[in-house]
Amino acid sequence: MIKDDWCGSMKNLKIYLVGFGNIGVGFAKILAKKAEAYRERYGLNILLTGISFAEGSYVSGKGIPLDEAIGYATARKLQKHKLYTNESFDDVIGKVDADILVEATPTNIDSGQPGLKHINAAFDRGMHVVTSNKSIVVDFHKLVERAEKAGLEFKYEATVGGGIPIFSMYRQCLQSQDVISIRGILNGTTNYILTRMYEDGLSFDSALQQAKEMGIAEANSSYDVDGIDSTAKLVILSNAILGTNHRYKDVKREGIANISLEAIQMAKKHGFAIRLIGQSDGRHLVVKPRLVSVRSPLNVGGTLNALEFETELLDTLTIVGKGAGSIESSSAVMSDVISIGSRC
Amino acid sequence: MIKDDWCGSMKNLKIYLVGFGNIGVGFAKILAKKAEAYRERYGLNILLTGISFAEGSYVSGKGIPLDEAIGYATARKLQKHKLYTNESFDDVIGKVDADILVEATPTNIDSGQPGLKHINAAFDRGMHVVTSNKSIVVDFHKLVERAEKAGLEFKYEATVGGGIPIFSMYRQCLQSQDVISIRGILNGTTNYILTRMYEDGLSFDSALQQAKEMGIAEANSSYDVDGIDSTAKLVILSNAILGTNHRYKDVKREGIANISLEAIQMAKKHGFAIRLIGQSDGRHLVVKPRLVSVRSPLNVGGTLNALEFETELLDTLTIVGKGAGSIESSSAVMSDVISIGSRC
Repeated sequence: MIKDDWCGSMKNLKIYLVGFGNIGVGFAKILAKKAEAYRERYGLNILLTGISFAEGSYVSGKGIPLDEAIGYATARKLQKHKLYTNESFDDVIGKVDADILVEATPTNIDSGQPGLKHINAAFDRGMHVVTSNKSIVVDFHKLVERAEKAGLEFKYEATVGGGIPIFSMYRQCLQSQDVISIRGILNGTTNYILTRMYEDGLSFDSALQQAKEMGIAEANSSYDVDGIDSTAKLVILSNAILGTNHRYKDVKREGIANISLEAIQMAKKHGFAIRLIGQSDGRHLVVKPRLVSVRSPLNVGGTLNALEFETELLDTLTIVGKGAGSIESSSAVMSDVISIGSRC
Repeated sequence: MIKDDWCGSMKNLKIYLVGFGNIGVGFAKILAKKAEAYRERYGLNILLTGISFAEGSYVSGKGIPLDEAIGYATARKLQKHKLYTNESFDDVIGKVDADILVEATPTNIDSGQPGLKHINAAFDRGMHVVTSNKSIVVDFHKLVERAEKAGLEFKYEATVGGGIPIFSMYRQCLQSQDVISIRGILNGTTNYILTRMYEDGLSFDSALQQAKEMGIAEANSSYDVDGIDSTAKLVILSNAILGTNHRYKDVKREGIANISLEAIQMAKKHGFAIRLIGQSDGRHLVVKPRLVSVRSPLNVGGTLNALEFETELLDTLTIVGKGAGSIESSSAVMSDVISIGSRC
């Protein structure tokens, strides 16, 4: 689908965006703000030629006007836009003119749907895929193999540590050596709860309540608190970086609901914090609460995420940043898009 | 100088290494260990076709046998090797068959020599340059411009935070956005001293003495303790990442020699550590001791280095690792070499 669509040294890069919620709209906002910079810096003219969402789609070969689409989404009036049709993804994928599918629908780690369907349909059409959807955990290796065989790019930076460029760091910055193991704080909600317990002496229940009131935890907190989110991320990380072929069910998982304030205070007295750590040595994948020295670079507080690479030549390297957030995750999606555009 | 020297899909990448001390020998060691992996993974057959050192040179168009050269260097018998000649860099540069000059001679931030001479001579000969030599601070922008005009690569990952891939992270992982400011702990020796004062209640003099005994500080510690090393690194960082055109003398510099144990203890009582921080917002470059919250990801102890990027879209991103060390710095040099080889 990549065309020789040059204008001088300028290349058109056409995007079909599926999912127009926080991350999809964030992606459009970043593009609206930075399109000119990307043209100048990378010779990439990035166009949104299609957007599909629950109620229908917008399609325009010339590029959908961004500010307008963002405005209609923000006002929750997507169906009022002049480009609106009630066509679904299935209708649009067969005809949209796009080089890259950006898949930004919600995660479903049981069935993987509708994310997997979208991604496979894009590969069928010869499109590259960039996704923020952790559903890829369900079929990770199949997707990677399909993309490789077809010579297509498949990128998923936003799925783990939205604000931390983990996969591109691994691929672009650690080429000269092997990564031996990884471990990290992969979920900001649980880290926030553990931080409140450690710093303010709150019980688990009070800290969770506070996290809910601040919008950091969902009403149904099991996805975070029981380590489900961390586990999905660990599987993607380990398969991508350590070449494992694990599935969600292969991970030994324990959440934070049973951690007592007493345990945290005892750890604190001895110079440790308790953090929910996901780790893989390439064979065993485990998510569980662990003692982390307060002096360790991995011991970050609040909603931060941190990942430590144990490498062959650099000892350990730790990268710390925001794990989630609409703009952070959208920016990871954009990074993937630009890296594909710069290569093609 | 890059030739169409293919063997199937294999590309020969010929290196002329100048400086065969810790970093140069470390580079040869990594190559000896990983050459096969690089052939498989990147299709790069990396050969050392020349090595120059204080007493002379080895040259071999077919590639200098690595284990042997490493052995002679370790035994301090470089002149006993059968390839040894007393030719200097000036003799060799005109005739060596190499795609990349790896410049690993000692830093001289006053004159920049002999590093600058080596790098310019390599550019004259159409070679790419990879360096670990902070002497580039003396003429940074001239070197960058020369390389750009000649279409040559000029890479210097090892000059700042040897064990942290700062420049490749900036270039490869943060493409979708601007970096607004940077600040970091850029010198492991001073950080070690400040950590001993903070954790063990040592005076500056005792902590410095301990660092000397452990081989972490030089006999003449001014280069580290007075912030000279941090300043040179900050200039390279700021010029490369924030596009400034500053020189060493433009930096406001203050070292750690006047920090009292009382100041550190007072800071500690209020939840802060004192760290020697280099920072640039793209206009003002400052190296000086600053209060850092013990909760900040930047607050790392011991000889670790840490760099915080304040970015447009990701809030702050912090990367922590070993600042120096022969293998870490050599691995950064190798990363640069591979990234050039993969592109050409």
